[in-house]
Amino acid sequence: MSTAPVTLPDRLAEFQSAYDELKARGLRLDLTRGKPAADQLALSDALLTLPGAGSYTDAAGTDLRNYGGASGLPELRALFSDALRVPVPQLLALGNSSLTLMHDVLAFAMLHGVPGSERPWGREETVSFLCPVPGYDRHFAITEALGVRMIPVPLNDDGPDIAAVKAALELDPTIKGIWCVPVYSNPTGAVYSEEVARELVSLTAGDDFRIMWDNAYAVHHITDWRPEPIDVLRLAAEAGNPDRVFVFASTSKVTYAGAGVGFLGSSPDNIAWFSHWASFQSIGPDKLNQLRHVELLQSPEGVAAHMEKHRALIAPKFAAVQEVFGRRLAPFGVGSWTDPKGGYFVTLTVSPGVAKRAIALAAEAGIAITPAGSTHPYLDDPEDAVIRIAPTFPTIDDLNAGLEGFCTALLLAEAEKASASAA
Amino acid sequence: MSTAPVTLPDRLAEFQSAYDELKARGLRLDLTRGKPAADQLALSDALLTLPGAGSYTDAAGTDLRNYGGASGLPELRALFSDALRVPVPQLLALGNSSLTLMHDVLAFAMLHGVPGSERPWGREETVSFLCPVPGYDRHFAITEALGVRMIPVPLNDDGPDIAAVKAALELDPTIKGIWCVPVYSNPTGAVYSEEVARELVSLTAGDDFRIMWDNAYAVHHITDWRPEPIDVLRLAAEAGNPDRVFVFASTSKVTYAGAGVGFLGSSPDNIAWFSHWASFQSIGPDKLNQLRHVELLQSPEGVAAHMEKHRALIAPKFAAVQEVFGRRLAPFGVGSWTDPKGGYFVTLTVSPGVAKRAIALAAEAGIAITPAGSTHPYLDDPEDAVIRIAPTFPTIDDLNAGLEGFCTALLLAEAEKASASAA
Repeated sequence: MSTAPVTLPDRLAEFQSAYDELKARGLRLDLTRGKPAADQLALSDALLTLPGAGSYTDAAGTDLRNYGGASGLPELRALFSDALRVPVPQLLALGNSSLTLMHDVLAFAMLHGVPGSERPWGREETVSFLCPVPGYDRHFAITEALGVRMIPVPLNDDGPDIAAVKAALELDPTIKGIWCVPVYSNPTGAVYSEEVARELVSLTAGDDFRIMWDNAYAVHHITDWRPEPIDVLRLAAEAGNPDRVFVFASTSKVTYAGAGVGFLGSSPDNIAWFSHWASFQSIGPDKLNQLRHVELLQSPEGVAAHMEKHRALIAPKFAAVQEVFGRRLAPFGVGSWTDPKGGYFVTLTVSPGVAKRAIALAAEAGIAITPAGSTHPYLDDPEDAVIRIAPTFPTIDDLNAGLEGFCTALLLAEAEKASASAA
Repeated sequence: MSTAPVTLPDRLAEFQSAYDELKARGLRLDLTRGKPAADQLALSDALLTLPGAGSYTDAAGTDLRNYGGASGLPELRALFSDALRVPVPQLLALGNSSLTLMHDVLAFAMLHGVPGSERPWGREETVSFLCPVPGYDRHFAITEALGVRMIPVPLNDDGPDIAAVKAALELDPTIKGIWCVPVYSNPTGAVYSEEVARELVSLTAGDDFRIMWDNAYAVHHITDWRPEPIDVLRLAAEAGNPDRVFVFASTSKVTYAGAGVGFLGSSPDNIAWFSHWASFQSIGPDKLNQLRHVELLQSPEGVAAHMEKHRALIAPKFAAVQEVFGRRLAPFGVGSWTDPKGGYFVTLTVSPGVAKRAIALAAEAGIAITPAGSTHPYLDDPEDAVIRIAPTFPTIDDLNAGLEGFCTALLLAEAEKASASAA
């Protein structure tokens, strides 16, 4: 946490006039969402003509144009099985979004309960979930929409704060789960250690306690470092809690954000449970789109090679964040920020009470930043200090302009606060 | 309902030996599901290379490869708007299955209630649905899976028996909806009259009573006759119940059964309600697959022309059903069957207590028929008399062999019953 250096109040007038100039430029820039840029999408444009004339069967000869195949194309599941550490029979390939699978797992839990539940979660007085913060706004939105109470716990650099998690579980028997983004966590870039994962699957909790293991960025590296994938299902089984974990992933940031494939992995019992309830909802996913993906990506090595092309396009954008923040903010001791080795976000922490104001000032100058509070349950960051930066979607020029402008807005907000404190 | 003619017991030995011969042939034929055949799927094989290199934007210039577009591609919605009688702004184009939309509408109703609900349906003591019979097994399966009680009402040739519907509603305040397949109903082929539709939308019922209007076969004609589409949303608005109806449809039997597009149409308030809850579940459907469909089908006239090609392939199969039943069953007064002008099914009604036995005999001879009872809630046809015939999926040769064999099995079952009655 930075403390406002004494020089800031002296700079108030200077920062104000820089901000006025920024506003006068009438920018229109959007740094809000973790979306791939057009050049990243173009890496998968072979999908536009795949699977190709005459290509509509899988290796077993099944006609993929027709109904059926509720678990998804075996060849595609095999392609991601190793990276996700989920055996093919326990890995489903389904629709175009892992978000849908997360929602539906929780919705099925509310409507029917999960293996180990005494009753549907919706029949409980209260159901609560632990939400490591900062975290992902869409996780929190699903949780809130389904009427599940959210309890924030701190996210450390190696995963959720286990002492806080244990303390919450001891106090509150209504807790039935926890959200996790184990690799390049949204938004800090934290990578869970195997030690923390082992603690999570070993927690003393109810039989229907579930870890929502959203492995959204398993192969989304932007440095040469490769975190060793955590075999969380094996760890859970070893801990005597084989049904504790649902693994989620997708190709949304591998191929097309809007037309990819979502994956759900879990224990045999959980997969049987999900497949049972999903059988009323669907006669099978779009297997032709899955075939397109197999033909585009070909092999696990093909996936890795494809992700290197993404890295080449987005690593410079992450570098730009470090460069601009280092040059514009560090000299004033303003802010601290993460330097993620993958994923889609950087977390910037500013002085308490400054995040909302800085984002509002940026918005007035035409620079859209993810709303303050989005990283916390109920959009409530009690410190008003955490800002999520999403650098991938704009062009590098727009990104640089947006970051420079945002620093101008943030410096003004910090100087305002420092002046008010000094007064 | 046929009554067993006196000649049947005399034929028992003859039918038994015909059946023994059939069994000895070791057939393997499947007449169970309403699936398109491979030659029908091939009509849409342009989808295998569409949308084509460089084609990934909609008319407004939006990049369809990325996230977003929660309502679906406007151009595709426009293509089906007239046939479904739903204005484009009230018609969503979503994932690959209308079944998913039916499930999710009911699941959202259970979890959250619909506009007009006092509380989530799942918080009610009991929620019940009217199920016109014979009806569609997957409708009943969704209903049962979500814990909704099912009450059968008769389906007439022009829609649900309105007197029975009114009587049920007067007796039972827990009834919150009714399933309807208004055009070429699954499985009888009944086509609702506008008069019956007007009665349904005018029923005295709770504010959250909903009609699940599954217009699965709106454009699936197999004769020259074209039923005038019913503007059920307008009728509901005119009756003062604008939010009463959810309209469902899909291209599953227009293009690819497994890789088509599902549609949901309703009143502005219902669509806002659905879109709100769906926004937690999805960042948007696969819009590239929707673009493929626009490029393949082009216009409402293009859809109609495409459906004529289906008709050319499946009308002979429906004719085969009439021919075989007429030749094999009519001489013995066995069975009565519908002669649908579209859709995917024929309903055969046999003597009470004979359906299960006939289907079991057919199964023993290697001919799979949709299980008896599938046409009724809880798989319970109290008369054990209704059999659903699905003629589209087999080749015409397999279909003929399957029908002949099934008639052999049915004649034996009827003769067994007649003999037992005569004894």
